Amino acid sequence: MFVQQFFVPGLAHSSYLLGGAATCAIIDPRRDVGIYLEAAASMGMKITHILQTHLHADFVSGHLDLAEATGAVIVMPKSANCAFPHQAVAEGDSFRIEDLEISVLETPGHTPEHITYVVRDRARGAEAVSIFCGDTLFVGDVGRPDLFPGIALELAGKLYGSLHEKLLALPPFCEVYPAHGAGSLCGRAMGAKRTSTVGYEKLYNNALTIADREKFIASLTTDMPEAPDHFSRCSDINRQGPALVRTLPTPEPLPPKRFREKMDEANMLALDIRGYTAFSGQHVPGAYHIDMGGNFSTFAGWVLPPDRKILLITNDGAEAAEAAVLLRRVGVDQVVGYLEGGMFEWAKAGFASDHVPLLSAPELNQRITSGDGLILVDVRSAGEFGAVHVEGALHIPAPELRTRHQELDPNRDIAVVCSTGHRSSLAASLLKRQGFNRVWNVAGGMTGFNAAGFAPECPLCVVPHGPRFLGK
Amino acid sequence: MFVQQFFVPGLAHSSYLLGGAATCAIIDPRRDVGIYLEAAASMGMKITHILQTHLHADFVSGHLDLAEATGAVIVMPKSANCAFPHQAVAEGDSFRIEDLEISVLETPGHTPEHITYVVRDRARGAEAVSIFCGDTLFVGDVGRPDLFPGIALELAGKLYGSLHEKLLALPPFCEVYPAHGAGSLCGRAMGAKRTSTVGYEKLYNNALTIADREKFIASLTTDMPEAPDHFSRCSDINRQGPALVRTLPTPEPLPPKRFREKMDEANMLALDIRGYTAFSGQHVPGAYHIDMGGNFSTFAGWVLPPDRKILLITNDGAEAAEAAVLLRRVGVDQVVGYLEGGMFEWAKAGFASDHVPLLSAPELNQRITSGDGLILVDVRSAGEFGAVHVEGALHIPAPELRTRHQELDPNRDIAVVCSTGHRSSLAASLLKRQGFNRVWNVAGGMTGFNAAGFAPECPLCVVPHGPRFLGK
Amino acid sequence: MFVQQFFVPGLAHSSYLLGGAATCAIIDPRRDVGIYLEAAASMGMKITHILQTHLHADFVSGHLDLAEATGAVIVMPKSANCAFPHQAVAEGDSFRIEDLEISVLETPGHTPEHITYVVRDRARGAEAVSIFCGDTLFVGDVGRPDLFPGIALELAGKLYGSLHEKLLALPPFCEVYPAHGAGSLCGRAMGAKRTSTVGYEKLYNNALTIADREKFIASLTTDMPEAPDHFSRCSDINRQGPALVRTLPTPEPLPPKRFREKMDEANMLALDIRGYTAFSGQHVPGAYHIDMGGNFSTFAGWVLPPDRKILLITNDGAEAAEAAVLLRRVGVDQVVGYLEGGMFEWAKAGFASDHVPLLSAPELNQRITSGDGLILVDVRSAGEFGAVHVEGALHIPAPELRTRHQELDPNRDIAVVCSTGHRSSLAASLLKRQGFNRVWNVAGGMTGFNAAGFAPECPLCVVPHGPRFLGK
Amino acid sequence: MFVQQFFVPGLAHSSYLLGGAATCAIIDPRRDVGIYLEAAASMGMKITHILQTHLHADFVSGHLDLAEATGAVIVMPKSANCAFPHQAVAEGDSFRIEDLEISVLETPGHTPEHITYVVRDRARGAEAVSIFCGDTLFVGDVGRPDLFPGIALELAGKLYGSLHEKLLALPPFCEVYPAHGAGSLCGRAMGAKRTSTVGYEKLYNNALTIADREKFIASLTTDMPEAPDHFSRCSDINRQGPALVRTLPTPEPLPPKRFREKMDEANMLALDIRGYTAFSGQHVPGAYHIDMGGNFSTFAGWVLPPDRKILLITNDGAEAAEAAVLLRRVGVDQVVGYLEGGMFEWAKAGFASDHVPLLSAPELNQRITSGDGLILVDVRSAGEFGAVHVEGALHIPAPELRTRHQELDPNRDIAVVCSTGHRSSLAASLLKRQGFNRVWNVAGGMTGFNAAGFAPECPLCVVPHGPRFLGK
Repeated sequence: MFVQQFFVPGLAHSSYLLGGAATCAIIDPRRDVGIYLEAAASMGMKITHILQTHLHADFVSGHLDLAEATGAVIVMPKSANCAFPHQAVAEGDSFRIEDLEISVLETPGHTPEHITYVVRDRARGAEAVSIFCGDTLFVGDVGRPDLFPGIALELAGKLYGSLHEKLLALPPFCEVYPAHGAGSLCGRAMGAKRTSTVGYEKLYNNALTIADREKFIASLTTDMPEAPDHFSRCSDINRQGPALVRTLPTPEPLPPKRFREKMDEANMLALDIRGYTAFSGQHVPGAYHIDMGGNFSTFAGWVLPPDRKILLITNDGAEAAEAAVLLRRVGVDQVVGYLEGGMFEWAKAGFASDHVPLLSAPELNQRITSGDGLILVDVRSAGEFGAVHVEGALHIPAPELRTRHQELDPNRDIAVVCSTGHRSSLAASLLKRQGFNRVWNVAGGMTGFNAAGFAPECPLCVVPHGPRFLGK
Repeated sequence: MFVQQFFVPGLAHSSYLLGGAATCAIIDPRRDVGIYLEAAASMGMKITHILQTHLHADFVSGHLDLAEATGAVIVMPKSANCAFPHQAVAEGDSFRIEDLEISVLETPGHTPEHITYVVRDRARGAEAVSIFCGDTLFVGDVGRPDLFPGIALELAGKLYGSLHEKLLALPPFCEVYPAHGAGSLCGRAMGAKRTSTVGYEKLYNNALTIADREKFIASLTTDMPEAPDHFSRCSDINRQGPALVRTLPTPEPLPPKRFREKMDEANMLALDIRGYTAFSGQHVPGAYHIDMGGNFSTFAGWVLPPDRKILLITNDGAEAAEAAVLLRRVGVDQVVGYLEGGMFEWAKAGFASDHVPLLSAPELNQRITSGDGLILVDVRSAGEFGAVHVEGALHIPAPELRTRHQELDPNRDIAVVCSTGHRSSLAASLLKRQGFNRVWNVAGGMTGFNAAGFAPECPLCVVPHGPRFLGK
Repeated sequence: MFVQQFFVPGLAHSSYLLGGAATCAIIDPRRDVGIYLEAAASMGMKITHILQTHLHADFVSGHLDLAEATGAVIVMPKSANCAFPHQAVAEGDSFRIEDLEISVLETPGHTPEHITYVVRDRARGAEAVSIFCGDTLFVGDVGRPDLFPGIALELAGKLYGSLHEKLLALPPFCEVYPAHGAGSLCGRAMGAKRTSTVGYEKLYNNALTIADREKFIASLTTDMPEAPDHFSRCSDINRQGPALVRTLPTPEPLPPKRFREKMDEANMLALDIRGYTAFSGQHVPGAYHIDMGGNFSTFAGWVLPPDRKILLITNDGAEAAEAAVLLRRVGVDQVVGYLEGGMFEWAKAGFASDHVPLLSAPELNQRITSGDGLILVDVRSAGEFGAVHVEGALHIPAPELRTRHQELDPNRDIAVVCSTGHRSSLAASLLKRQGFNRVWNVAGGMTGFNAAGFAPECPLCVVPHGPRFLGK
Repeated sequence: MFVQQFFVPGLAHSSYLLGGAATCAIIDPRRDVGIYLEAAASMGMKITHILQTHLHADFVSGHLDLAEATGAVIVMPKSANCAFPHQAVAEGDSFRIEDLEISVLETPGHTPEHITYVVRDRARGAEAVSIFCGDTLFVGDVGRPDLFPGIALELAGKLYGSLHEKLLALPPFCEVYPAHGAGSLCGRAMGAKRTSTVGYEKLYNNALTIADREKFIASLTTDMPEAPDHFSRCSDINRQGPALVRTLPTPEPLPPKRFREKMDEANMLALDIRGYTAFSGQHVPGAYHIDMGGNFSTFAGWVLPPDRKILLITNDGAEAAEAAVLLRRVGVDQVVGYLEGGMFEWAKAGFASDHVPLLSAPELNQRITSGDGLILVDVRSAGEFGAVHVEGALHIPAPELRTRHQELDPNRDIAVVCSTGHRSSLAASLLKRQGFNRVWNVAGGMTGFNAAGFAPECPLCVVPHGPRFLGK
């Protein structure tokens, strides 16, 4: 028996290779599947099975791409009713990969169709050695049951059952391989450690230690982070079967003149992915800004209108190709071009550009203390804002500014702030798109503001023990 | 808490990064320590501790190199009596890395000074979350206690105590992070899986399930694989403190003429590391052959006389540099040069070369069945030979041919065979060095011979369930 | 005005980028055209013209691939009667690239349709600054006129006219950019320097200094190196328009079993491209051997039967991909697969292999002086053989062994020798394919034999001043 | 005979490998000499000679580094009075590299000690085949004789003699290999073509066609571009012998806090080398800005005070290493550190940053036409300014702003403009260092302003035929 974990930062997604000597399964694969083909080839293994624990909401999975490349069978929960060829499994079903016996537990809660794969290594013994439990049980947390608002309470109840009656009934030594780690929006407070055991989680997992079913349900359906817009989209794509990556467009280099013409075509959208410092210096008017250095895939899936074609502004073509991979992971598939030569050529062509001036921590402090009327909008999550913020700051999470810009006065000076500057730059780009012209971005965000020692001057600026931050 | 495993194929050695949020420890580091510096830097962590579970016998460790690069403290078992600056720890000692409490258990057995580091994550709870147990407990096996022949029985007894009284007393969910995986000579039959739990091993580990102390001792001191020559050397080097890698020579390119002159200097040795096919075609007379494709480091430490300077024959300079890294891992430090331009330039210079003709499976079969007097020497381990061999084959493990060549008649045709051809090529080079001129190597080894269907013709060629093979 | 030369070793082919400020031409492009696209892009130039001096005989050109990638117009000699869309030009035609005026001289001789492009930089002055003269005039030599045997004398006469009446009438300072350098078979004795001037060549070019027309014709039609088989094929392919590279197969990895099955399909051929040492050790029976380290493309075009599908034996997949590029350069387009895992996996699968034992220089000398009946076949060119050879050696150039193996007795021991071992290994593979079983290859070739000091023992081993060697 | 040219963009410097079959010379080497070692090794050549045509003023040469790496002899003009071991040569001296006879012509003019190496290929004939003439004769231009102000007229006269009496006396077909190409400040108007011939230059070279000696002197000592500050420094360094690169510091990563502390040490200077867009967004207060995308080495040598230690602000460590190479080329040797994590970490640390807002072409036009009192400072060279500029713009070349900032009013809004934005960003950083707080940089420069069609609105915006631009 052999297990290898593959981790995607940002999405904080873990997939797995579970192998015998010559054959293996891939569990919950990412959409860019080359990494599995290489890993299997390097060990002389053939990929024969592709296992999905559930219909992932936060990313588009590579089950069809991997099946095409390998001929492996796709194993799906029966109740997912998938539209592509697959082997449907339900409670009690089992199959083998060499000495490994893999049996199915139905563990609804995070989603209705969720299952867990329980592995027994018959070469060693009859007890379960590990589980691949998707988004049911995490290190330090459990999967959020609130993604289907109409049935959140029902799912939370089922999750309680799945955990307490099924997973915790497994031996304490049984290893836990979840589909997500710290940073994922599929839970609230996962640990940095990427695997655990049933016994350890039983003792110390914050959610599992709520013994009372009703309190568990209440806890899991209250104060959850907002669910990004693409979560429901991705589930459905994964059910229908995502388009094969080889059928999607490759972003084409477009000189400034062609780029600008293309922007005028129907259904086009400009997306700037450079660092926030460069975006602040000059950018194509009207462009969205999502910094590749932040939680890029998640925010792209969240704020970009679906079904639009994407024109990228990047530093170079390699970065455009990399961004296309990250965008496809959340189903943003139509990345048709990028600005050849970047903003340097755009400026040489004499086209107009826009700007978002930055404020360093001392500059922000100076403006706040001078009382010059600056509006400070904190665009972090509710949890982060609750933990510490500048007195008087407004709180509007970045994605909500798509509509809640209406709460702001475009004739006032507005500074946006997040943790370090990525999300606030996205927020600034959303305001710019709405015609706000007096927008500043706080470079270094609250991290810099605190590090500079300005927080003590705000009575509210204390840092209680709170949930982890989503962005960076 | 964060854990990352680093695995070295061949030596089948696992080392670890154990981190909090901003600081981390490296446990049982390899000698080429760049990989740890990069991993820590990529996560923004500072390496503050270097932990050794024991004095490694099978490789030279990078504790001094890593300490020089990072300023971290080296933590060693007190009873190891190390000669370099370190923090000595013994039973009951403990220290912290942020939230992580690390305490010491003395677990002698594999070696007298062996300790285990038990980790408790105080941010989560008081019970042990994982152990770094070096060569005390492996996945499916335990550390061999027979490396110190005079006290093997004593150590086996201590190992029984270390396991049953200390490690198995830990919670079943506690994760087990050993220093070796499948293929290592520090145990007998490890699994391909690279981590486990206390509870799972308690149930199914072949050694742990021997409840009787005396039977355990008997089992662990009988039929062990031979211990390579460098095992005692490396222990001592690790105790004294290895030379810093930056002080060792970098192999210098030597044109054929200078290479030949250099070979005549005192204390020099030629080592060919190309594939066995190339070695068979032509090689520098007198060269040892250890194929980089096989278990290179282990056999180099095993058969090369210590304290000799090494002249490499490789395909190119990059390969020479890579080989030097692998040789340093077993304390073969004086790699002073390599043949510039390889055998192609050697031949152009008109120098003599030697040859080891190959036999493919059908050719070997033809010679065996023709009864032409060919002696077949099977150079695999006792376990492999016992599992399946050609009727009438002599059995002499490859490293033993350094002396046991005396059992063979240099005037007979001799074919050497192993699993696939790597070890038999080493064996052929050892015979050549002793003046044997009629030596063939079986390409594809027993693997090819069996695949070709010739095994059924030998009554003894059956493949019982047996121990894993060492080589490839 | 800007000029950049691109040189292909082996074929010794020079192509050129001739640019103004924003646009440029590519002259006599190789088939793998990515290098031109990158060069032009890096300087911000657009490729607008593709110029051919003639229908190349020794390689398939990339004019159609480059036209498809850029939209550039292909300029061809009118008398070439090309079958693809192009702009046909003849004596006196001219066109411009920015300040550059490019006019056409008809310079038949090497081929009937050959033209020369004369460049004038109108930004500087009216006189010709350089010529792109293809295979009409080389550094130190002229293009051979004997490739069309029926009209060799006629072409030699025309060449005299083209050179003396047209090219030598240009100013002495006019730079000469030829299509080939030292090593090409399109001439006899080119210099290592890759460009020259009209005036310098007029003074010192061996062919141009033959003032008498008849003597010139006699010289250029006598004692020329043999023309490889693919020369007439390539001319015709270049006239019809080569297949676009993107439409050709990519070599697919084939495990040993599939490789062997594939070999049995109609029209298949196995080609081993590893170093001769590896080939000597073990190879797939029946495989051709052409060492990538030698003049690979030329010998592949020469000896491989056209229109066969190719199965490669290589060290790895990257090498297979590289070989496919080199094979396409001579119109060997159907490279369908390669042996996955190489000979190591072949041997493990238990399949038969063949061998060509090597002789080092001292071993060859020992066999020659012992008079044991060894036949030594020298497979170099007539010029090389004439310059120095071992007394008693037979002379059969490597490619001729395809038929002249009939002059040899398969029951005798035969050693083949060339300059360093590449061509002799090809020769050995040709003999093996004809059932010769007692074949040795001389490692290091005559280079090693001479370097070892054995040449003086052969009275005939003297080294007169002679033409350059073709192979390495 | 074999010649290979190595071109350094920015400095527009050409060096050469001149080889026979097995040995070669390097002529006028750059300071980072690895490229020569690789080129020679790839052709199996040994570097035996290092030839300098003169004491280079615009870059520090690698003669000592290359001599140490190869053991080659350094050949220098006798009158250079060099302080390191070398072979001094003067008019009429000659030496050989295999068939190549290399003789020395003294050709003072660009510098007093300047010599030219004349090559004759004795394997071909007695006439000169090529000259390596350093900065005496360029393609389309000659070396400027005005770098030693006190003796400019004298040197101009000597240059006339060197050209007309010596170089032009060589055969017209003799090839000219100069040490610089288009963009170098060692001449005024070189062509993009990188080599030429004596005959062609004789006809069309702008300087050579001035037959009258006095007019030649007048022309060559009038209206020359300004000589950067490092020109005299580099000459002297090259005479004394530059420090070996291996003895210079490697830039060390410095976290923000250490970077800021280091800035306060004596003799430190911060240099930002990112793109101008990023610099505009946020930068360390007081930093010089020289964009790596522009003529980096030249402006660094020009404006940075000598003998200061350099702290870099870059995007990453690889860029810092690359910048250190470019800085060493102009003798800026003490690059001691770089800001680890770049401005992103600087901002997170809460430190103050500064900004230079950008103006796109339409924004500049709007401000100009609105008459809002903006001062436009054109920082290009006199030639560029003369060719076309915006009516009313002030002209102060960028490097002169180090002192001529005094001509500007810090209380006015000031926009700086160059060709595309690189030099104007340098200019902006110089003004910022002097306390100017109301500085804008024109993104896209005059290139964008013209492309946008705004030039016609300025009556003075006409583009006469003028000299080439220095920057990009």
